Amino acid sequence: MSNTIGKRYWAIAEGYIPDGSNGPAPEMTSHETACILNASDQDASISITLYFSDREPVGPYQVTVPARRTKHIRFNDLTDPEPVPRATEYSSVFSSDVPVVIQHSRLDSRQSENALMTTIAYSGNQ
Amino acid sequence: MSNTIGKRYWAIAEGYIPDGSNGPAPEMTSHETACILNASDQDASISITLYFSDREPVGPYQVTVPARRTKHIRFNDLTDPEPVPRATEYSSVFSSDVPVVIQHSRLDSRQSENALMTTIAYSGNQ
Amino acid sequence: MSNTIGKRYWAIAEGYIPDGSNGPAPEMTSHETACILNASDQDASISITLYFSDREPVGPYQVTVPARRTKHIRFNDLTDPEPVPRATEYSSVFSSDVPVVIQHSRLDSRQSENALMTTIAYSGNQ
Amino acid sequence: MSNTIGKRYWAIAEGYIPDGSNGPAPEMTSHETACILNASDQDASISITLYFSDREPVGPYQVTVPARRTKHIRFNDLTDPEPVPRATEYSSVFSSDVPVVIQHSRLDSRQSENALMTTIAYSGNQ
Repeated sequence: MSNTIGKRYWAIAEGYIPDGSNGPAPEMTSHETACILNASDQDASISITLYFSDREPVGPYQVTVPARRTKHIRFNDLTDPEPVPRATEYSSVFSSDVPVVIQHSRLDSRQSENALMTTIAYSGNQ
Repeated sequence: MSNTIGKRYWAIAEGYIPDGSNGPAPEMTSHETACILNASDQDASISITLYFSDREPVGPYQVTVPARRTKHIRFNDLTDPEPVPRATEYSSVFSSDVPVVIQHSRLDSRQSENALMTTIAYSGNQ
Repeated sequence: MSNTIGKRYWAIAEGYIPDGSNGPAPEMTSHETACILNASDQDASISITLYFSDREPVGPYQVTVPARRTKHIRFNDLTDPEPVPRATEYSSVFSSDVPVVIQHSRLDSRQSENALMTTIAYSGNQ
Repeated sequence: MSNTIGKRYWAIAEGYIPDGSNGPAPEMTSHETACILNASDQDASISITLYFSDREPVGPYQVTVPARRTKHIRFNDLTDPEPVPRATEYSSVFSSDVPVVIQHSRLDSRQSENALMTTIAYSGNQ
């Protein structure tokens, strides 16, 4: 059924919150987003783990996406167990208890005109 | 056979129509597009459901893509059952009666130079 | 074996060659590219079919990618059986006799600063 | 388990390091990146082979991504067995001894404002 579309495990290998922005906040602030769609009829409890180049992983960050809802998570806004450092390379892994769909985007407004990028995340088969 | 390439269920987790544009309309108007390829020999009847962060899903929006045709749907242009709100986060799920291929793009021209992004949508296995 | 990575059928749903450019030609000319990797030890003979919104498909365009080579095909440069129209929506389907990997990119330089987008194409299981 | 998410074989068909940059180095230097996530508990030994349009493949370039770490590899920085030529089309294939997730990005700052693009790489089933 289309209302359970998705997978339970996802990864975004590219992660980097640019340090600096141009334009009105918050919509033109440089940010990284994980857009999570939960098209199922059950709330999704999602654990996010962040991986770095030079230290052990941090997490889990706990996020709930209610049934039949979408949530656009800005990595900029994650604070528990700790904020996501700026200008630092990281990756993220998502583990959900119900199937979801995750897409990654970045708005980079360090220079005066903004740049955008997006990709569907990688879904594991586990 | 290559002329039936695709899947019947697709999702785009990232959705957001920027509010504001620079440059000549309609080609430089900020917009979100779902490009749908129906390479089969049968017309595709497609139902689109939109998911939001704070209310129940809206839809279905009904779209037909004729046999051996492509259709680039601007979410900006969807009006029935209701227009897609601007500057609002949403996700979309597509259910087709024949296999299709769907790709997501955004042109953001809020600042004076445009930004682009694209990704193949997520295809369910259902 | 890694040297046969890929699939034989691919589709790019989003296609549009912007009409107009800024910056030095040819590297900053607005263009659409299909990057084809043939990591196998056999030449790849590839047929490309273009799909439009309002007329029958056009093709096949014939392309050869030699063994252990990559080819970045600009849709702008396809001429046989006919050139690809500018400022026109299209989709493309690729059929190869050996496994290849295909990625889609666009450089849009209609405004003074360029915009980029890319995605891995959709690979069918046929 | 989510900590072994990924595949062992990956390909990026689109490769091109722009020749020229605007803005402060190194963060605004035009570059191509392969972001590699190794979420497993074992170090990943990865061989990268580069494919060109007019000559035999070059490699392997050897990279290690430690257990539970991410590494953002700039193709600009690869030097052994030889540097990656600028303004030249190439593709890349990755072979790892443990599952990893790979995402491709480019920052193009040839013009005064930067442009970004990204996509999940293609993962083979081998």
